Amino acid sequence: MSEQNRQILLVSRPQGEATVDNFKLVETPLAPLEAGQVRVRNHYLSLDPYMRGRMNDTKSYAPPQPLNEVMIGGTAGEVVESNNPKFKPGDRVVGMFGWQEYGTSDGTLLKIVDDTHVPLSAYLGAVGMPGVTGWYGLNRIIEPKAGETVVVSAASGAVGGVVGQLAKAAGCRAVGIAGGEDKCRYVVESLGFDACVDYKAGNLYKDLKAQTPDGVDGYFENVGGEVLDAVLARMNPFGRIALCGMIAGYDGAPLPLKHPALMLTQRLKVQGFIVSEHMDVWPQALAELGGRVAQKKLHFRESLAIGLQSAPEAFLGLLKGRNFGKQLVKLI
Amino acid sequence: MSEQNRQILLVSRPQGEATVDNFKLVETPLAPLEAGQVRVRNHYLSLDPYMRGRMNDTKSYAPPQPLNEVMIGGTAGEVVESNNPKFKPGDRVVGMFGWQEYGTSDGTLLKIVDDTHVPLSAYLGAVGMPGVTGWYGLNRIIEPKAGETVVVSAASGAVGGVVGQLAKAAGCRAVGIAGGEDKCRYVVESLGFDACVDYKAGNLYKDLKAQTPDGVDGYFENVGGEVLDAVLARMNPFGRIALCGMIAGYDGAPLPLKHPALMLTQRLKVQGFIVSEHMDVWPQALAELGGRVAQKKLHFRESLAIGLQSAPEAFLGLLKGRNFGKQLVKLI
Repeated sequence: MSEQNRQILLVSRPQGEATVDNFKLVETPLAPLEAGQVRVRNHYLSLDPYMRGRMNDTKSYAPPQPLNEVMIGGTAGEVVESNNPKFKPGDRVVGMFGWQEYGTSDGTLLKIVDDTHVPLSAYLGAVGMPGVTGWYGLNRIIEPKAGETVVVSAASGAVGGVVGQLAKAAGCRAVGIAGGEDKCRYVVESLGFDACVDYKAGNLYKDLKAQTPDGVDGYFENVGGEVLDAVLARMNPFGRIALCGMIAGYDGAPLPLKHPALMLTQRLKVQGFIVSEHMDVWPQALAELGGRVAQKKLHFRESLAIGLQSAPEAFLGLLKGRNFGKQLVKLI
Repeated sequence: MSEQNRQILLVSRPQGEATVDNFKLVETPLAPLEAGQVRVRNHYLSLDPYMRGRMNDTKSYAPPQPLNEVMIGGTAGEVVESNNPKFKPGDRVVGMFGWQEYGTSDGTLLKIVDDTHVPLSAYLGAVGMPGVTGWYGLNRIIEPKAGETVVVSAASGAVGGVVGQLAKAAGCRAVGIAGGEDKCRYVVESLGFDACVDYKAGNLYKDLKAQTPDGVDGYFENVGGEVLDAVLARMNPFGRIALCGMIAGYDGAPLPLKHPALMLTQRLKVQGFIVSEHMDVWPQALAELGGRVAQKKLHFRESLAIGLQSAPEAFLGLLKGRNFGKQLVKLI
């Protein structure tokens, strides 16, 4: 009697907002391990905004998630069985097994990590793809100079938190934008930003202006829409905007940019990027991020949904900003 | 009895569209030349879209044109009197004397040019600020590679014509966008672009798609609005957009950008620039442009308005695309 693997499939594409009905939980027997293969029990699933784009069947930088297959995503877990000399049971590994309890592979894209000083889950956050995303946009696009002002939206999230803390370390004024008093307090008090603007308070531009008295030199964008309009109006000449995400428009109609001429009059550089296309920087970025986490100089927070079946609801909450810090599913 | 200088002043700021009533022609006696001064009889005034921005009293990259002063602008002419050892009567010079028949200065910003192989007026166009503008945006922002597709709007204009011809010389497919059949024919037949799309024909996106079968890698933007929306939708991954002008929005309400998320999904670099902030490239650019004009490898066309009094009307026409090639005023 083979063991069962529980998996979540994408079974339909959203019409407008994504819903839990787009997903389906199934149980599949685990096939015996073949030569060269390794089997991993996943402990954490990473939930990330980019997944929303993959649910659509439209032209984008990545092919769509196929229907009736396991939903994609980063995972962290432990090797439980191995026919591959590179892995042994007990190894902690990060991979891309998606929304399922067990992952089986030939070891490609599977990476052994050391959880002595860095918690396993952090390899899906500050010391993983979100951390490198923040590192790349800040260091390779914004290129902050000491004394400049750097703003980041979704500042309490996995990417935003890293951006602001690295900007502070670079000698900048770091200003976050987040939704709600709790998140803003956390961004300032726990993450050490100089200020955080609550976009839900209803005075986004005015509050942002008050917190950026010298204007904005670098902006790391995760949100788009009205938030982008507001920050654009505060940009200094020769400002740099790293476009990482536009979560505000993922579910519905495209959000226009109200005053694109500011990119010209302020001579801005606006650059979109996808961190997976810059693998050359990962080793340097991960070494720096891992070192900072181990030294407790880089802080983060996690929202844990418990059990595989909670993934769809937690993912939809992430799209609405209901998470607080890096959204994970802890598998039990 | 002193000689008279005829001048055009900006006397009011536009409310919406600029009109001829914003300008006033006056006659002023020429003061005797002081020590160190040089006097120039202007032969050509340059009319350029950037002047529209200077008419407003709003925050921009340059201070507004003061009211009741001579309207700014580039000029080409001939020294008629000199108390400055660097200049002698008969020298051909380009300067920034603005909309007037005579200019008087201490020689600062006045440059002697050689009109043996390059016509004097070209120093206000292909071998002047517009030419360097095209050179900079193409070479320093778009950085074209052979085989790529480069699109430029206002392709029959002073800047656009240079961009497309340099892109062709770099081994690219050069596609122009211009208004009307005559301009498009000129862009292809006289300037040597591979194709030109007539935005007035009513099928901008469809026609652009047909002429850019491999997508667009570099876009040089002079127009904004619907034209920018259309080209953005044709951009290839890692495309570069040099934002030089957005003339479509200069007179009225800000024109939104409909699908800013394309900058992210296509990982574009969008960069605004003002050529006067990059004086370091001018010598190299002017040497190359002057060489190409002298060798008859770089072609251009001029629209001449005759007489100082024609400047306001010609300038307003330029804003509506009524010029065909570089708009000048020939002083008589």
